[in-house]
Amino acid sequence: MGEKLGSLRRTHMCGDLRSSNINDEVVLMGWVQKRRNLGGLIFVDLRDTTGISQIVFDTDISEDAFNKADKIRNEYVIAIKGNVVERHSKNKDLPTGDIEVFVKEVKILDESQTPPIYIKDDDDVSDAMRLKYRYLDLRKPFMQNNLKIRHKTAKLVRDFFDENSFVEVETPILTKPTPEGARDYLVPSRVNPNKFFALPQSPQLMKQMLMVSGMDRYYQIVKCFRDEDLRANRQPEFTQVDVEMSFVDIEDIIRLNEKLIYKIFKELKGIEIDLPIKRMPYREAMDKYGSDKPDLRFGFEISNISEIVKDSQFKVFSDTVDTGGEVRAINVNGYESEFSRKGISKLEKYIKTYGAKGLAWIKINEEGINSPISKFLSEEEINNIIENFNAKLGDIIFIVADKQKVVLDSLGHLRIEVAKQLDLIDDEKFEFVWITEFPLFEYNEEEDRYVAKHHPFTHPVDEDIDILETSPEKVRAKAYDIVINGDEIGGGSIRINNSELQERMFNALGFTKEEAWSKFGFLLEAFKYGVPPHGGIAYGFDRLIMLLTGMKNIRDVIAFPKTQNATSLLTEAPSGVNKDQLEELNISLISKND
Amino acid sequence: MGEKLGSLRRTHMCGDLRSSNINDEVVLMGWVQKRRNLGGLIFVDLRDTTGISQIVFDTDISEDAFNKADKIRNEYVIAIKGNVVERHSKNKDLPTGDIEVFVKEVKILDESQTPPIYIKDDDDVSDAMRLKYRYLDLRKPFMQNNLKIRHKTAKLVRDFFDENSFVEVETPILTKPTPEGARDYLVPSRVNPNKFFALPQSPQLMKQMLMVSGMDRYYQIVKCFRDEDLRANRQPEFTQVDVEMSFVDIEDIIRLNEKLIYKIFKELKGIEIDLPIKRMPYREAMDKYGSDKPDLRFGFEISNISEIVKDSQFKVFSDTVDTGGEVRAINVNGYESEFSRKGISKLEKYIKTYGAKGLAWIKINEEGINSPISKFLSEEEINNIIENFNAKLGDIIFIVADKQKVVLDSLGHLRIEVAKQLDLIDDEKFEFVWITEFPLFEYNEEEDRYVAKHHPFTHPVDEDIDILETSPEKVRAKAYDIVINGDEIGGGSIRINNSELQERMFNALGFTKEEAWSKFGFLLEAFKYGVPPHGGIAYGFDRLIMLLTGMKNIRDVIAFPKTQNATSLLTEAPSGVNKDQLEELNISLISKND
Repeated sequence: MGEKLGSLRRTHMCGDLRSSNINDEVVLMGWVQKRRNLGGLIFVDLRDTTGISQIVFDTDISEDAFNKADKIRNEYVIAIKGNVVERHSKNKDLPTGDIEVFVKEVKILDESQTPPIYIKDDDDVSDAMRLKYRYLDLRKPFMQNNLKIRHKTAKLVRDFFDENSFVEVETPILTKPTPEGARDYLVPSRVNPNKFFALPQSPQLMKQMLMVSGMDRYYQIVKCFRDEDLRANRQPEFTQVDVEMSFVDIEDIIRLNEKLIYKIFKELKGIEIDLPIKRMPYREAMDKYGSDKPDLRFGFEISNISEIVKDSQFKVFSDTVDTGGEVRAINVNGYESEFSRKGISKLEKYIKTYGAKGLAWIKINEEGINSPISKFLSEEEINNIIENFNAKLGDIIFIVADKQKVVLDSLGHLRIEVAKQLDLIDDEKFEFVWITEFPLFEYNEEEDRYVAKHHPFTHPVDEDIDILETSPEKVRAKAYDIVINGDEIGGGSIRINNSELQERMFNALGFTKEEAWSKFGFLLEAFKYGVPPHGGIAYGFDRLIMLLTGMKNIRDVIAFPKTQNATSLLTEAPSGVNKDQLEELNISLISKND
Repeated sequence: MGEKLGSLRRTHMCGDLRSSNINDEVVLMGWVQKRRNLGGLIFVDLRDTTGISQIVFDTDISEDAFNKADKIRNEYVIAIKGNVVERHSKNKDLPTGDIEVFVKEVKILDESQTPPIYIKDDDDVSDAMRLKYRYLDLRKPFMQNNLKIRHKTAKLVRDFFDENSFVEVETPILTKPTPEGARDYLVPSRVNPNKFFALPQSPQLMKQMLMVSGMDRYYQIVKCFRDEDLRANRQPEFTQVDVEMSFVDIEDIIRLNEKLIYKIFKELKGIEIDLPIKRMPYREAMDKYGSDKPDLRFGFEISNISEIVKDSQFKVFSDTVDTGGEVRAINVNGYESEFSRKGISKLEKYIKTYGAKGLAWIKINEEGINSPISKFLSEEEINNIIENFNAKLGDIIFIVADKQKVVLDSLGHLRIEVAKQLDLIDDEKFEFVWITEFPLFEYNEEEDRYVAKHHPFTHPVDEDIDILETSPEKVRAKAYDIVINGDEIGGGSIRINNSELQERMFNALGFTKEEAWSKFGFLLEAFKYGVPPHGGIAYGFDRLIMLLTGMKNIRDVIAFPKTQNATSLLTEAPSGVNKDQLEELNISLISKND
């Protein structure tokens, strides 16, 4: 049934022993990583959360220990007492490789069956197996390390905000369903029949309430929930570093948060970022990178060549410009020879998924200009395009003509795709940029109305308040995103702090006064009683940890994640519940017919 | 619409100005606590989260500022620039009472209607109003202070565990419904029709999984949920400091946690606790205090006088002992004169709510023995009772005879009640005790079986493992609670770390092997692969903060609490949702007929 610890107490961790410990008597506890019988001795790699020590059983030292060790299998949990000696054959790959421990006493604390997955970083078992046996998967050193980096980052974030006079305040998990935004997870209320709580998509309104409460500076590392169909790096519950400050404008929030970002990258990656972090207005990001989260680790910026080709004989270009579209291009400078016709045709296929109808290109190689469209363009037009990019021998220019949205989307993805193919994306390089001056609204074709690009509490840029009703499409928001290597890691805004402006905002979104009050009544009520200027930011904590650990999969930075199907393979949640429970909640099931 | 901050930036907080700031030019921002026009000047108490500064408007300094100030009302949000001067009439009650600020420039950042509640600590508005206008209620200095102490405590707890090599790991909020324990909050899954997540009642199983994962030391400050009918100091969501360690026994956990408790009380209350904290086995606590969470700030211990009266002529006593009951008593020493017959009859009524049939008493006063039962007891019996308590002139002994449970419950509550009435409970005194050696099981009459007193993963005391099946009622658990001033602030145990023992435990609880696997299959599966000895503790964080702030109501230490009816008066959650949302979730409402 497993031996008991008794009075035995751990003196060292397995990963900590060094030459300086030679001659020490130590007690180690952990899991058996590997056992070998060799030359009359038994060698065991003993593993705990800090690493591995080699322990040796020798009948000359303890026959009893040796005999027990002979029964030990992988993943047995044992405790040993022994003496540290200099290792005969040192292992330079192991921090503890200079020593080994000769065992005087061993206790088998628990046995183990043969585990269904290997406990090693390079085990290539399926994701499903990893999630089902998560407690074994988490024994792998890289997973332990990911969780520790997560812990360290959280600690650093908390220390930072504490030092800067922020107060950690917990906001409710059982909240009010949100009328705007993504789909809520709902929780039926037993005490209040036929009513539901929602799990928060973010504590946005609550943190604003805290500012109205005079809390001045708030932060929280908090779970948020979205019942959306899960894409690759999404989880139904995710973690947010949530921040809000009073009596500030954009500059104050950005400056403070740059200090945090600096500290995180310095302490966790050893990288000293140049401050201030560069800023780029939304419009420029879209124009140059086709994205509001540009990856700046490589070039290939987008350039608008509509002016050059607007009168071209090549109708594909000139007609596009004529009908309000655009012709834009990127120069993949120096890599002309990397793109075969077959390769280009694959790229064309790729950008068609973003709506492009085709991909034109111009190569400048030893033979001169090489392009399937060269026969349709005048020499002047081709020269102007080349000149526009300062293109040289060895360059290749990719051109897309379409509606602006399609052109930017296609070229934005194309520049990333070619950089990937050319292996130009350096995982150890970090490029930071604040994207600013987002549009306040975006037009929703489905609903045929303007909707808030961020949320309806975002403050317009002061100079644009006057055109809120007349030219909503031109109104810029006091909003900002921090983008690292093409990932939006955080974003925020200055909020509206005045009931009159808030009502104008709701009005611009097409809500009647009654609708606005029924949706956001408590906010509008609160706004009657003196609201300080305030704003904040929220970071996607899981994504930040992915960046810091170099993981590509969000599940590798979360202890107990869900599958794409929002289930836990470990616990088998969600599961059926009995009828009585549902009756108590005043709900019944609808059976799924399709 | 409210003036904009522009380039104006806060230089100081309102509560921070002192004589040393005299002649400084400062910018303050905050809410108008009070405005008075006096002798041609306007005086404003300006409040932010740190306190209040008096600011003065004088037409000689700025006519523009003065005119704006004349429009200012309570709770307006303003920013001022001005010079600190020595105050004419100093206010010793205010930390900033030595200075005032003469204003050169003022901006009205937002106006306010007359707030429906006063922003002052001693406002005695109803709880309902406080919760509905929570953002105003939180402006009160004592509420700001409570949230700050909560923040400081959380910070201290996090620092402590970080320093002791614990890793903060987030466990899921969307979990599997629990077959044992309190009622779950359920969350219908849209993607998995007719299946439900549950919100965790505690991360118990997940933290054990982390130990099986080799995480070694885990902590988390985490929200937990119970859909129970709410008693006075309960909330549907509450916060727990959750801790688990591997390769430890009771002693290690208690010793480490005493350091934490020491640190909390030292840094937040300035009290240095004597370590080690005293320990009391469950049986002793029940015998002496009628409770497993005894308040040790006062005496009046319970004593068993069954032996003395078992052969008494007084049948109420002797029959009780004959039929397996007990006669116990407390001596409220020195307070005989405080209890009139009317007072005693009220106490009797009070203990009847705990099942007692009556309350006997013996006074020792100037006239000698005064007791309604003296005529039924022999002189020897009375003398023996008096001797048992070393009772003296001025004492009063209260006696209850009944089944043990009723006797202990009644006298346990009686001793607290009389201490309250006698005003012997000192809010500034803190008495700590570990209650240990809890019974592993308790008999559930309703279900006619033994159930786990804590939970089914609690490790029995090693010596008692052999009698698990034969004498379950005698098996003690490796469990411990930390009790402060009669409140259980935390509790935990060593867990079973062996599948065989875990199965024996489930068996003792009356589960078939199939039931055990269907309820806790993933734990039993995990237990096949090497489980370290482990154990932990969980603190009720809200209750801890109540203790540290001296609050009697849990709602005063939570930013946005729910009512007794589990509703938010601020946001009006829970609320109705539309039919489409429910259909997506494959549920429909049952209308409540009663």
